[in-house]
Amino acid sequence: MHVLVIGAAGMVGRKFVQRLVADGALGGRPLAKLTLHDVVRPEAPATAVPVETVASDVADPGEAERLVAGRPDVILHLAAIVSGEAEADFEKGYRINLDGTRHLFEAIRRAGGGYAPRVVFTSSIAVFGAPFPEAIGDEFLSAPLTSYGTQKAIGELLLSDYSRRGFLDGVGIRLPTICVRPGRPNKAASGFFSNIIREPLAGHPAVLPVSEEVRHWHASPRAAVGFLMRAATIDTALLGHRRNLSMPGVSVTVGDQIAALRRIAGDAVVARIRREPDPAIVRIVDGWPRNFDARRARDLGFVAEDGFEAIIRVHVEDELGGSFVGADGAPVRI
Amino acid sequence: MHVLVIGAAGMVGRKFVQRLVADGALGGRPLAKLTLHDVVRPEAPATAVPVETVASDVADPGEAERLVAGRPDVILHLAAIVSGEAEADFEKGYRINLDGTRHLFEAIRRAGGGYAPRVVFTSSIAVFGAPFPEAIGDEFLSAPLTSYGTQKAIGELLLSDYSRRGFLDGVGIRLPTICVRPGRPNKAASGFFSNIIREPLAGHPAVLPVSEEVRHWHASPRAAVGFLMRAATIDTALLGHRRNLSMPGVSVTVGDQIAALRRIAGDAVVARIRREPDPAIVRIVDGWPRNFDARRARDLGFVAEDGFEAIIRVHVEDELGGSFVGADGAPVRI
Repeated sequence: MHVLVIGAAGMVGRKFVQRLVADGALGGRPLAKLTLHDVVRPEAPATAVPVETVASDVADPGEAERLVAGRPDVILHLAAIVSGEAEADFEKGYRINLDGTRHLFEAIRRAGGGYAPRVVFTSSIAVFGAPFPEAIGDEFLSAPLTSYGTQKAIGELLLSDYSRRGFLDGVGIRLPTICVRPGRPNKAASGFFSNIIREPLAGHPAVLPVSEEVRHWHASPRAAVGFLMRAATIDTALLGHRRNLSMPGVSVTVGDQIAALRRIAGDAVVARIRREPDPAIVRIVDGWPRNFDARRARDLGFVAEDGFEAIIRVHVEDELGGSFVGADGAPVRI
Repeated sequence: MHVLVIGAAGMVGRKFVQRLVADGALGGRPLAKLTLHDVVRPEAPATAVPVETVASDVADPGEAERLVAGRPDVILHLAAIVSGEAEADFEKGYRINLDGTRHLFEAIRRAGGGYAPRVVFTSSIAVFGAPFPEAIGDEFLSAPLTSYGTQKAIGELLLSDYSRRGFLDGVGIRLPTICVRPGRPNKAASGFFSNIIREPLAGHPAVLPVSEEVRHWHASPRAAVGFLMRAATIDTALLGHRRNLSMPGVSVTVGDQIAALRRIAGDAVVARIRREPDPAIVRIVDGWPRNFDARRARDLGFVAEDGFEAIIRVHVEDELGGSFVGADGAPVRI
């Protein structure tokens, strides 16, 4: 089993590779080769399996052909210009997110000789735009309100058509907002959803720029890796021609998030959250999906956490070695 | 008012140009110039207004820029490789229907200087794929089952994003099957919906390849021209960011079509229809949309016929000079 990961240096890509190497197999077939691609050279994991790392721009002419030349059995296409940058730089967003994806699919189609690898495409809930129903079901239209969401929605359409034609065997997964994101606070408009959990648990202050009534859709990094694993191995006959799925997640308000943090870590940790309303972020977040009825994906065996406490526990276990920074600055095990 | 029609040699394009020249104005502004483009040179209509006719491949490099150089106020983009051909020739379909559309939008964006013309894009009910609800509403997903439908759905997404960005002012309209199509019977799988009306009225036999239970979604050529007129002139503030609309139409079974023909023209004309089931056509038609709840478009002033008899009357009036060929071969006025 030769696995190619495009966008392997990102957070989800790195965690997927760790899990793949730990498992040593995918869908019961032993891992024989790993090709890791990103715009910066990804770190090679410690493994006996041959690993090739590649740094290039996937949208450059000929790059997709080079990546596909080794005929990987499974391709994870995680690479993307993120939402804010795709909105700020129209041409770059279309070049990477649309042309890059189309070049990849075309390179696979043109490889010929019956080559039709499993392609897992990470889409996004940004393919949906307000106004929304109470919960977004599996038949709700894609009417994105960002160029990023538009590019992902187009990628989904191409994935389905190339799959229907038999050129590849695609599964598109719309990831919830990944929470709790490890690492330092960043400037993404969605960053606060993670910041208000991660920073207090680490003993640092965090800023909450929106009201506690704001509702959003979350899944942990561990759940995201599980989605990728399931998408890479599922029998696609179960999907029919609709190859794109909204992943399950947890719909909670910011107030629910904070209540869950209080139950796990207590008042002193919650007190590290400072309220500083930011009208710009309030406006952006207002157009985002809040809740899904992800029945199809659940029925197909995609599994998310059952509540926000579970999402916090995953973070403490996977990123903090099982403990948080208590009231007196000393570690407290959960 | 300078109007550019891309795809002006097609049936709907020709009828739109006739109507535009007869009106001499669009949305209350006098017509000052007309540019008619198609892959074959369109006929120039008889009018005192300056008309330029252009024959070229809209997907060729530089062609879109040349068409946009004159900064038309309104652009109707009707050009497309039709469904059957886009399915048979994958590369040609994507080149004309996707790249051609994107090149046009890009040429408009790059023209700069605040240029943001009204762009009317003819999409199709082929953006929808089975399974369907009883009636397809305005929030039903695009899950096309053809490459043509995929290309049109992508065009819709681009139209909305370019409009949201202010690069153009787009309105996408999903046309029902146009019935009764004038002209000779063609090999399109949908051809029989028109053939079984047009041919008997003209005194010729027609073949019905499916059962009378087949239900489909129709509007007349005259209604289609009305849709284009409305889309070219509507205040797009009414549309918000969702720029694509399913047009109203008439949902009838083939049996309903024949009953309407009988009421207008009698048994002798209906007897010219010969039943010859064709399993290939039955299979294709099975995946097509049957019925819509096109509430949004109706509320926005797009008007279709109120029944299939009205559709037949439009055909007799607009194409047959008001009469059909009766039982004895003599013309009968309706």
